[in-house]
Amino acid sequence: DFAKVDTERKVRTGVPEIVYGEGKSASQIVKIVTTMLQSQNNILVTRVTPQKASDVTKYLPELTYDTSSKMLLWKKHTLQKTKGKIAVVTAGTSDLHVAEEAALTAEMFGNNVTRIYDVGVAGIHRLFARIDAIKEARVVIVVAGMEGALASVVGGLVTSPVIAVPTSIGYGTSFHGISALLTMLNSCATGVTVVNIDNGFGAGYSASKINHLGEYTN
Amino acid sequence: DFAKVDTERKVRTGVPEIVYGEGKSASQIVKIVTTMLQSQNNILVTRVTPQKASDVTKYLPELTYDTSSKMLLWKKHTLQKTKGKIAVVTAGTSDLHVAEEAALTAEMFGNNVTRIYDVGVAGIHRLFARIDAIKEARVVIVVAGMEGALASVVGGLVTSPVIAVPTSIGYGTSFHGISALLTMLNSCATGVTVVNIDNGFGAGYSASKINHLGEYTN
Amino acid sequence: DFAKVDTERKVRTGVPEIVYGEGKSASQIVKIVTTMLQSQNNILVTRVTPQKASDVTKYLPELTYDTSSKMLLWKKHTLQKTKGKIAVVTAGTSDLHVAEEAALTAEMFGNNVTRIYDVGVAGIHRLFARIDAIKEARVVIVVAGMEGALASVVGGLVTSPVIAVPTSIGYGTSFHGISALLTMLNSCATGVTVVNIDNGFGAGYSASKINHLGEYTN
Amino acid sequence: DFAKVDTERKVRTGVPEIVYGEGKSASQIVKIVTTMLQSQNNILVTRVTPQKASDVTKYLPELTYDTSSKMLLWKKHTLQKTKGKIAVVTAGTSDLHVAEEAALTAEMFGNNVTRIYDVGVAGIHRLFARIDAIKEARVVIVVAGMEGALASVVGGLVTSPVIAVPTSIGYGTSFHGISALLTMLNSCATGVTVVNIDNGFGAGYSASKINHLGEYTN
Amino acid sequence: DFAKVDTERKVRTGVPEIVYGEGKSASQIVKIVTTMLQSQNNILVTRVTPQKASDVTKYLPELTYDTSSKMLLWKKHTLQKTKGKIAVVTAGTSDLHVAEEAALTAEMFGNNVTRIYDVGVAGIHRLFARIDAIKEARVVIVVAGMEGALASVVGGLVTSPVIAVPTSIGYGTSFHGISALLTMLNSCATGVTVVNIDNGFGAGYSASKINHLGEYTN
Amino acid sequence: DFAKVDTERKVRTGVPEIVYGEGKSASQIVKIVTTMLQSQNNILVTRVTPQKASDVTKYLPELTYDTSSKMLLWKKHTLQKTKGKIAVVTAGTSDLHVAEEAALTAEMFGNNVTRIYDVGVAGIHRLFARIDAIKEARVVIVVAGMEGALASVVGGLVTSPVIAVPTSIGYGTSFHGISALLTMLNSCATGVTVVNIDNGFGAGYSASKINHLGEYTN
Amino acid sequence: DFAKVDTERKVRTGVPEIVYGEGKSASQIVKIVTTMLQSQNNILVTRVTPQKASDVTKYLPELTYDTSSKMLLWKKHTLQKTKGKIAVVTAGTSDLHVAEEAALTAEMFGNNVTRIYDVGVAGIHRLFARIDAIKEARVVIVVAGMEGALASVVGGLVTSPVIAVPTSIGYGTSFHGISALLTMLNSCATGVTVVNIDNGFGAGYSASKINHLGEYTN
Amino acid sequence: DFAKVDTERKVRTGVPEIVYGEGKSASQIVKIVTTMLQSQNNILVTRVTPQKASDVTKYLPELTYDTSSKMLLWKKHTLQKTKGKIAVVTAGTSDLHVAEEAALTAEMFGNNVTRIYDVGVAGIHRLFARIDAIKEARVVIVVAGMEGALASVVGGLVTSPVIAVPTSIGYGTSFHGISALLTMLNSCATGVTVVNIDNGFGAGYSASKINHLGEYTN
Ligand SMILES: Nc1ncnc2c1ncn2[C@@H]1O[C@H](COP(=O)(O)O)[C@@H](O)[C@H]1O
Ligand SMILES: Nc1ncnc2c1ncn2[C@@H]1O[C@H](COP(=O)(O)O)[C@@H](O)[C@H]1O
Ligand SMILES: Nc1ncnc2c1ncn2[C@@H]1O[C@H](COP(=O)(O)O)[C@@H](O)[C@H]1O
Ligand SMILES: Nc1ncnc2c1ncn2[C@@H]1O[C@H](COP(=O)(O)O)[C@@H](O)[C@H]1O
Ligand SMILES: [Mg+2]
Ligand SMILES: [Mg+2]
Ligand SMILES: [Mg+2]
Ligand SMILES: [Mg+2]
Ligand SMILES: [Mg+2]
Ligand SMILES: [Mg+2]
Ligand SMILES: [Mg+2]
Ligand SMILES: [Mg+2]
Repeated sequence: DFAKVDTERKVRTGVPEIVYGEGKSASQIVKIVTTMLQSQNNILVTRVTPQKASDVTKYLPELTYDTSSKMLLWKKHTLQKTKGKIAVVTAGTSDLHVAEEAALTAEMFGNNVTRIYDVGVAGIHRLFARIDAIKEARVVIVVAGMEGALASVVGGLVTSPVIAVPTSIGYGTSFHGISALLTMLNSCATGVTVVNIDNGFGAGYSASKINHLGEYTN
Repeated sequence: DFAKVDTERKVRTGVPEIVYGEGKSASQIVKIVTTMLQSQNNILVTRVTPQKASDVTKYLPELTYDTSSKMLLWKKHTLQKTKGKIAVVTAGTSDLHVAEEAALTAEMFGNNVTRIYDVGVAGIHRLFARIDAIKEARVVIVVAGMEGALASVVGGLVTSPVIAVPTSIGYGTSFHGISALLTMLNSCATGVTVVNIDNGFGAGYSASKINHLGEYTN
Repeated sequence: DFAKVDTERKVRTGVPEIVYGEGKSASQIVKIVTTMLQSQNNILVTRVTPQKASDVTKYLPELTYDTSSKMLLWKKHTLQKTKGKIAVVTAGTSDLHVAEEAALTAEMFGNNVTRIYDVGVAGIHRLFARIDAIKEARVVIVVAGMEGALASVVGGLVTSPVIAVPTSIGYGTSFHGISALLTMLNSCATGVTVVNIDNGFGAGYSASKINHLGEYTN
Repeated sequence: DFAKVDTERKVRTGVPEIVYGEGKSASQIVKIVTTMLQSQNNILVTRVTPQKASDVTKYLPELTYDTSSKMLLWKKHTLQKTKGKIAVVTAGTSDLHVAEEAALTAEMFGNNVTRIYDVGVAGIHRLFARIDAIKEARVVIVVAGMEGALASVVGGLVTSPVIAVPTSIGYGTSFHGISALLTMLNSCATGVTVVNIDNGFGAGYSASKINHLGEYTN
Repeated sequence: DFAKVDTERKVRTGVPEIVYGEGKSASQIVKIVTTMLQSQNNILVTRVTPQKASDVTKYLPELTYDTSSKMLLWKKHTLQKTKGKIAVVTAGTSDLHVAEEAALTAEMFGNNVTRIYDVGVAGIHRLFARIDAIKEARVVIVVAGMEGALASVVGGLVTSPVIAVPTSIGYGTSFHGISALLTMLNSCATGVTVVNIDNGFGAGYSASKINHLGEYTN
Repeated sequence: DFAKVDTERKVRTGVPEIVYGEGKSASQIVKIVTTMLQSQNNILVTRVTPQKASDVTKYLPELTYDTSSKMLLWKKHTLQKTKGKIAVVTAGTSDLHVAEEAALTAEMFGNNVTRIYDVGVAGIHRLFARIDAIKEARVVIVVAGMEGALASVVGGLVTSPVIAVPTSIGYGTSFHGISALLTMLNSCATGVTVVNIDNGFGAGYSASKINHLGEYTN
Repeated sequence: DFAKVDTERKVRTGVPEIVYGEGKSASQIVKIVTTMLQSQNNILVTRVTPQKASDVTKYLPELTYDTSSKMLLWKKHTLQKTKGKIAVVTAGTSDLHVAEEAALTAEMFGNNVTRIYDVGVAGIHRLFARIDAIKEARVVIVVAGMEGALASVVGGLVTSPVIAVPTSIGYGTSFHGISALLTMLNSCATGVTVVNIDNGFGAGYSASKINHLGEYTN
Repeated sequence: DFAKVDTERKVRTGVPEIVYGEGKSASQIVKIVTTMLQSQNNILVTRVTPQKASDVTKYLPELTYDTSSKMLLWKKHTLQKTKGKIAVVTAGTSDLHVAEEAALTAEMFGNNVTRIYDVGVAGIHRLFARIDAIKEARVVIVVAGMEGALASVVGGLVTSPVIAVPTSIGYGTSFHGISALLTMLNSCATGVTVVNIDNGFGAGYSASKINHLGEYTN
C-alpha cells in the first residue's frame, strides 16, 4: 500500500485518471492501474520508457503505448469533443515528443486539437503560412527548445491565452531547457504562462481546463 | 521617436493600453502616454515608483497612482464586467503589492475580481475558511513568496485553471523569488501555469483572457 | 590502511556503526566491516547498489541487503524500542527509497516508526485522513520531491519538530532535488529543519537523537 | 483586513505569537500587533530595522527593541524555564546578530540558553576550551558564515542534535551564505539539520520544540 | 604609474583610444586621458556616471559627455565614413543606453550607422515596417533585454552578420540580462554572435571591424 | 510532415542547406535530406553520432561522414573559394572536434581556411610561432575549452574580427564549457564575439558571412 | 566578550595579528585591537571602509589607514625583510585595491615585494616588457578581474608558484568575479592556486608563508 | 600534427613531461608520448581510464598504469628526493583517487611525500592522532569532498602553506565538488589556496614547486 489512488476528484465518466510513470517500477504501475480498473475513468500513464511500457502491457494488454508521447493509454470511454480548438505549435522537429504529450493529453480530455509543427522563428515565413490556423484556436500551446523565441512571437500575434512549454532540446547554454524556460517567463508578449521544462502533459491539461470554459453550459 | 506606440492591437473601446514603466524616465512616460491620448483606450502604466509617479502626474494630472500596485491608471471608459470571477489569493501580507497589480489589471480589463489575502499554508485553516469563495472563481491567481507552497495546495483543491505568481518576498535561499518560482513550476498539482517573479500584471492579463472565454458570445 | 574505523564514539551495545557505501569498492566495504566484527555494534552500510551488495555479501553473508533503502544491515543485537514515535511521511510513491532509508535507520537505532506514504498535497484529503497518526509522533520526517510543498503543510499542522528530506524525484526545474530543498529551507511553517537531498539516513539519525531525548532518564 | 492573525495555534499562556517583520510596513505591524493585544500571548516581531522599530514603538511603547537580534519583544508573561539547555555557538564576532535572534527566540519560548561565541575553527583551541559547556546542552545551535566548517566540527564532537544556521557573513564566493549553507547540508558529521541562511529565529524555535521533549511530562 | 597607456596598437590618425571608465576614479581618468593628449587619436571613455563625468570635465573641458551612452568623447579628427552601413536595432525603449553606446562607438570609428529602435517582437508589425532598412546594412547589431527574442527573429530575416547584445533590462527571471544572453547564445537563427550583457561598446567595435572589411581597398 | 524544409533562403547554387542532426532520428534525417535532393544545394548535417551516420548512409550513400567534425556532407557543387582567409585556432588537442566543425563548415561555404591547432597559452611560444599566419586572416575563430584564455590573447594580438568558441573540454569547474564561455564574454580584448559552447558550426557560418563582405563585388 | 582574541598562534615579535574588519562595528574593532595592545605584535585590520576607519582612529590614533588597500595598520616593530621577492602583478588599473591589500599584507609580514601593475593580456607587450622582473620573484601573485586570463599567461611563463586572485571588477557576465575565478581554477598553466574573489589579504599571507621557506634556516 | 609537444620548458634530466589524457584518444596519446621518447624526461599521463590505459600500453609497454591515481607513468630517471616533506591528507576513503594523483605527481617530481588518509572532521580525534606528522611537512595538501571542512581545520593547526583540493565525492548538494570548493575558497583559516575540483595533479605539482624553494641552493 505504497500508493493511494485518488478516486475522489474525477466524477464525469471517462475523464482520465493520471499516473506519473517516471520513478515508478513496471510492477508499481501495474498495481496502481489495476486499482483503477473498477472505475469508469480512462487512464493515462505519462513518461514511460519503451522498456517499461512493454513490461506493463504484458500484464495489462488493454493499455496501448504511444511511442511519440511516451504515454500508456486506456480509452474505455469516448468523451464528447469540444467545439473550441487547442493549437499545439512547435519550433522544431525535435520538440515532437513533448508536443505529442500535450496534444494527446488534450485529446484524452475531449479537446479538438490542431497540430502545427516545425514553424520556428529561424524561418519565420513558415509560421506566417500557418498563422490563421493558430489564430482560430481558443488556447495555443507553444512548444520550443533552444532559445524558445517562438513563444514570444506567437504571443505577440494571437489574442487567445498562450501556454508555453520549454523543451530540453539544445546543447551547451541551452542548459537542458533553462534557456527556453527563461525566455518564456520573460516574454515581452503578454498573455503567456509557462509550465515546467518538457511538461507537455501539464500544458495539455491546463489548456483543456481553459478550453472547456464556456463549453459546459452550451 | 524612441518609442513606437502600438495602436493596432486593441480595438474594443476602453480596453487598456499598457506601458511598462520600469527603465523609462518620467519624461519618456509622459511622451508615450500623450501619444495615446487621442485613442479611446484606457491607460495602465506598470512598475512606477512613487517619485516617478509624482513627476508624471504633474504633467498628466488625469492619471491616478495606486500605491499598493504601483501602477498609474487612466480610466476613460468603464468596461462591461464579466459574470465569471477571478480569485486573487495570497499567502502573506507582504505579497500584497504583487497581488494588487494582478487584481487591478484584471479589473481594468473588465473582470469581476475576488481578493482572498493572507491564507498561506503555515496556518492552513485560514485557507479552508475561504475555499468556497476560491472554488467559485473561473480562474484562480495564487500569489506567494518564500516557498510558494500555496499554489500546489490551491491547485489540488480547485478544478479551475490556476495561474501562479512567485514573489520576491523572503530572504536567504528564497533567492528573490527563485524558490517560489521553482515550487510553482514543479507543482505536483496539475493545472497550474506560472508567470515571471513579481509579474502580477502578466497574471492578471492572462487570467482576463481566460475569464473572457465563453463570455463574448453570451 | 586507507580507512580509520571510528571505534570510540559509540559505546552502548548494539548502537549501529555506520559506513557510507557510495564511492567505496565492494572490497573496501568488506575490509571496513570486517574490522568492526569484534565490536558489539550493529552495522549499517548506506547507499549500496544491488551489484555491490551482492559482491559484499559473498564474503560477508551475515549482512542482509534491503532493496528499498539500498542499505546493508547487520543486526547483532536488538536495541530497546522507544515509547515515542517517529512518523515518516512521503508525498509520492517515488520517494519510497529515501523514506525507507530514513525509517530503517531510525529503527536500527531503536525507534518506534510509523510509515505514512503517498499523501502529497495534490490530493490533500489523503493527508488529512492520516493526520492523527502524524500528530501522535514526537518527531516527523517529511520526504518529498518535485516542489516539496508537503513539508510546509505538515509543518503548519503539527507541533512536534519536523525534519524535511528533499528528494531528487522530478524532472526539468526540479533540478534533481534543488526545488524541493529550497521549498523546505524557505518553509513558512516554523519548526522545520532540513537535510541534504536524498539524505534519508541523516534524517532518520537526527530524528532518533531527538526522539531519545527524555527517554534515557525514564 | 490584509492579514489574518492566527489565534488558534498557541494555547499555553505566554507562548509567543510571532510576526515576520520584513516586507511589512510599520503601520501594518502596529495593526497586526494590536489585534494580538487581547490574547495572553507574548509577542515577538522578527527582522525589524531600527527605523521601523522606532516607528512602531511610537504607537506601541510596550514593545522593546533588541538591537542585536533586530526583534521587537513584548513579554507579558514569564514562561517557566526548561531544565535542559540549548547552546548557541558562533564561529565569529560577525555572526552575533543571527545568534542573538536564535538565543532570544529560544529564551522567549522558555528555554535555558548558553551562549558560546567566537569559537570558529581557524583557532580550534577556542572551541576545545568551551566544549564541555557545549556538550552539556540538550540541543546545540551552530551559527557560522564564510565556510561554516564549525557545524561539522561541533557535529562530530557532541551527541545531542545540532541545528546549523548559515549566515550571510563573508564576501566573494561566500555568496551571501550559500557556501556555509552547502557546507552544513553536506556535513560529514551526522545529526546536523539545517535552516535557511540567517534564520536564527527558525533555529531557536526548532531547538525549543526539541528541548521541550521529555520536559512536559516532568 | 598605475596605468600603462597602450600607444602602440592604433596608428591611423583619429582612430579612437579607448578607456574603460568603470572602477576608475575621476582623477585616474584625468591622468590617463592627459597621457593620451600628445597622440593624434580621438578618445572615448566608456561607462562614466554623470557625477564622474562632471568631475573629469572640470579638468579636461575638451571632453564632451553623452548622457544616453554614458561616454566621454574627444573628437580631435573626423574619420572618413564607410559606405557600408551598420544597423542598430532595439527591442524596447529601455534598451536605449546600450544601443547608443554601440551606435556612437561605431560612429567614432567612422561607420555609417542607422538606428532602428523599439521594434520588439511583442508587436512584430513594427519590425516588418523597418525590415528593409535593416536588410540594407552590412552588419546588424540587435540590442534586447527581457527574453531577447528579437535577435533570433532578425537573425532569421537578414543575410548579413548579426551581433547580439543582451541588456540587463527586465526583472525577476531576466536575472539582469542572463535570460537575454542565453536566448542569443542559443539562437536557432545562424549567423548570430554575442557579446557581454550591456556591452554596447564591444558590439559597436566588432561591427566596425567587420564593416571595414572590403572598404580599405576601395 | 513533421519538418518543414526551408527552401526559400538559399538561392546561389551550391550554398549548403544545413540540418541540425542532434535530437533527430536517423529516419527523420533521411526524410529531410531526401526532400532536399531536388535542389541544387550542397547538404551539411551537424552533430551526428557515428551510429546514426551509418544508419543514414545506408539509405543515402551519397552522404559522406566526417568523423572529426561529426558532420554528414553532400558536396554536389564546388563553390568558388574566397581570396580572404579564415584562421581556425585551437588551444589544445581535445578541441579538435569543435574546430573541425568550424573549419569544414567554413570550407563548405567556399572559404579559404587555415588551421592552427594546439597553441594554448600554457606554452605561449607555440602561439607566437604561428602568429603571422593568424594575422594574415580576415577573420579568426578561436576554439578553446578549460579557461579559454587563448581568445583574449589572440584578440589582443590581431586586428581582424575574432569569433570565440568555448568548448566543453575540461573537468570540475570548467562546468562543461561555462568557464570558457564566461572568459570569452568578458574578454578584455575588444573585437571578440562569442557563440554557444561547442558551436563550431555557428562560428564557421558567421565567419563565412563576414569573410564574404567585400568579396561579392570583386 | 563577543570576540576571543587569538594570542596563541603568533609568537615571533612583530608578526602581525589580523582582524577581519568587515561585519564588525567600529566599536567592536576598537575593543578587539585594544586587547591586542599588550602584545608585541603588529596589527592589521582588513576590509575597513573609510568611514569606519575614521571612527576607529578617533579612539586609536596609533592606527594608520591605507586608502588603497582599505586596511588599518599598526607597525610597532619592523620585521627583517626576506631576500626572496614576491611579485604582485595586475591586469588593470581597477584591480589596484586588491593588489595593494596583497602587497601590503606581504610587506607587513616582512617580505620584499615588487609591484607590476596594468599589464593585462589585451596589450600583451606590456607584460613582456616586465616579464624579467616577474621571473625574478620566488612567488608570483596575479590579480585580475573580468576574464582573468593574465593568470594563465603568467603561469605559462614563470617557474615559480603562482597565486591567482580573481577580482570583482567587470560587469554583466563577470558576475562579480566568478568569471575570473573560474578562469583561474581551470588554468591550463599548471602551478596556479587560487584564493577567494577579492581576497588580496589571503594571497599576500600565503605568498609570505611560501616565500619564507628556506629563508628561516639561512 | 594535431598536438605540439612542448619540449622547451623542462630542462633538468628526469623532470616529467605531462600529458593531459582526458579527451584524447588512445592513439593520440601514443603519438604524443612517442614524440617525447627521445628526450630524457620522465612521462606522466593524467586522467586515463583503465580501458584507454590498456590500449596505450599495448603499443607502449614501457608505460605503467597506476589504478588508484589513474595515471600512466614512465620513470626513465630517478630524481633526487627533497629533504622537505609534502603531506597529503584526506578526509575520507573515497578521496583516495585524487589524493594518489597528488601524491604520485609530487613523487614523480622528486618530493618526499607523507600520506595521511581518512582523518575527516566527523571523528576529529583521528586528525589529532596524526597532527604531528602533518605539522612536520613543509607543504600540506588537503583532499576532501562533501563539505570539505578538513581544509579549514588543518589550515588552523599548521603554519606551513596549505593547498586544498575539493573532490567530487558526495551527493545532492555536494554538487559534484562545488560545496567543498566553496568551503575551501572561503576558509576562515588563512594560508589556504585552492585548485580545481579533483585536480590532484595540480596540487601535487604546485606543492612540488613550493617544496623545492630553498632546496635548490642546498
Ligand atoms: N509589469 C509588467 N511585466 C511584464 N510585462 C509588462 C509589464 N507592464 C507592461 N508589460 C508589457 O510591456 C508592453 C509595453 O512595453 P513598452 O512598449 O516598453 O511600454 C505591454 O504590451 C505589456 O505587454
Ligand atoms: N525571521 C523569520 N524567518 C522565518 N520565518 C519567520 C521569521 N519570523 C517569523 N516567521 C514565521 O512567519 C510566520 C508569521 O508570518 P506573518 O503572518 O507574515 O507575520 C510565523 O508563524 C513564523 O513561523
Ligand atoms: N580580508 C580577509 N579575507 C579573508 N580572511 C581574513 C581577512 N581578514 C582577516 N581574515 C582572517 O580572519 C581572521 C580573523 O577573524 P576575526 O577573528 O573575525 O577578526 C584572521 O585570522 C584571518 O585569518
Ligand atoms: N589532470 C590534470 N589537470 C590539470 N592540468 C593537467 C592535468 N594533466 C596535465 N595537465 C596540464 O596539461 C598540460 C598538457 O596538456 P596537453 O598538451 O593538452 O597534453 C600539462 O603541461 C599540464 O600543465
Ligand atoms: Mg526544422
Ligand atoms: Mg501572515
Ligand atoms: Mg501518488
Ligand atoms: Mg574572531
Ligand atoms: Mg515599447
Ligand atoms: Mg597540447
Ligand atoms: Mg589598463
Ligand atoms: Mg572514513
